[in-house]
Amino acid sequence: MAAVEVTAGIIIIGNEILSGRTQDSNLKHLAIELNEWGIRVKQAIVIPDIEATVISTLQAYSNAYDYVFTTGGIGPTHDDITAECVAKAFDEELIQHPEIASLIRSRPAEPEVMESRLLMARVPQSAGLIDNPTGGPQGFYIRNVYVMAGIPFVMQAMLSSLKDKLRGGARIHSRSVTAFLGESQISRTLGAIQSRFPSVDIGSYPFSKDGRYATNLVIRGTDESLLDQTLTEICQLIEAAGETPLDIEVG
Amino acid sequence: MAAVEVTAGIIIIGNEILSGRTQDSNLKHLAIELNEWGIRVKQAIVIPDIEATVISTLQAYSNAYDYVFTTGGIGPTHDDITAECVAKAFDEELIQHPEIASLIRSRPAEPEVMESRLLMARVPQSAGLIDNPTGGPQGFYIRNVYVMAGIPFVMQAMLSSLKDKLRGGARIHSRSVTAFLGESQISRTLGAIQSRFPSVDIGSYPFSKDGRYATNLVIRGTDESLLDQTLTEICQLIEAAGETPLDIEVG
Repeated sequence: MAAVEVTAGIIIIGNEILSGRTQDSNLKHLAIELNEWGIRVKQAIVIPDIEATVISTLQAYSNAYDYVFTTGGIGPTHDDITAECVAKAFDEELIQHPEIASLIRSRPAEPEVMESRLLMARVPQSAGLIDNPTGGPQGFYIRNVYVMAGIPFVMQAMLSSLKDKLRGGARIHSRSVTAFLGESQISRTLGAIQSRFPSVDIGSYPFSKDGRYATNLVIRGTDESLLDQTLTEICQLIEAAGETPLDIEVG
Repeated sequence: MAAVEVTAGIIIIGNEILSGRTQDSNLKHLAIELNEWGIRVKQAIVIPDIEATVISTLQAYSNAYDYVFTTGGIGPTHDDITAECVAKAFDEELIQHPEIASLIRSRPAEPEVMESRLLMARVPQSAGLIDNPTGGPQGFYIRNVYVMAGIPFVMQAMLSSLKDKLRGGARIHSRSVTAFLGESQISRTLGAIQSRFPSVDIGSYPFSKDGRYATNLVIRGTDESLLDQTLTEICQLIEAAGETPLDIEVG
């Protein structure tokens, strides 16, 4: 049976990432977690808080991938435009969701502050909710688009509540091995191995350690027996070059 | 005189970022450094090592932005396809650049290893070189596209060699201030301030510290006197809410 590939695109919304103020860490977390669920991140994009850009990106990603995950722009301030853009992207009205509103109202505040907080209850009319285990306002989803907070610990909490609720495909597994060899010492044979195992993906990542060239080789794919065969051949390649395969990891 | 905006798009090429193996740090460095030079990062995209995707992204970004910077995919292994894709994107032949080849040949190696290393000398025929102060093979540029290594310290070295060689526009300056206030306590007045100063960009970033809600407000724009006026109004807003403006920073 051919492995079914289930894909995702990630949209990171926020001027603060593009200005360099904030180091994004949501992409890495999403990539690792979604892969565990059998969902493969195929592309990620970082876009500013500009309505037309957010809308067109949402539409393009929703068409291109099985799932889309957005982070950022769902707070109560003027630069939080994600919910409105999602509604416009799918031609829906923005409504106040009673369940989010009720959660927000359960914590008392002055009327003006409450009115601002309730901006976080706005969702497109057909949206379902994404639980927020931190206790704050929920995220939401509409069609194949999952809208989450930008603050990493809130995003991670929202994502955890989606576990086992999304349809995953074949999980990507990995094998990795390191050797004190420069990439150029192995690139030809490595390329030949890649050609013989086209359904696995071999990545080669050079680094230096203690003043010596080293390369980390990562093999990824859905078929674990193919990964093991590829790993065996790569270990033979390392030994043929007079070095020892180090730090073998199975993922 | 109206401020000239000079724009950039960033293309991060590499399966390792999309799999979650590697945390990207190049975007943040590029954003901060380019901003110092008066070049504003408008969008960034992370794409896999797939030829058609790399080519179409290069073409789209080259058309959309004044400058495009790519990171990743210029080593000697089978997954290093950036140079070839750049050549194809601009319909040029891939040649061996004599200056890069000469640098590579200056370090002796077995014939087969040398042949692999020389793959790093491949550039599109009209390419100019980007110096590599780490001593490794150079990066290159063609038209408005600057092709750099993915390894952060090499990318940073290559970028540093471009300083004062690119045409910058008005530099973006910033002011920032923090207060122990939740976003909802200030969002309405903050939105009104943003409306009165449409040419500055006010970002609101909530966090919690010592169990209290806090918000970091960042004002960005090219006109420093407008930034100062906006900062003054935001500080008044914070004081009117009974709090003290903290950690004021000028950038």
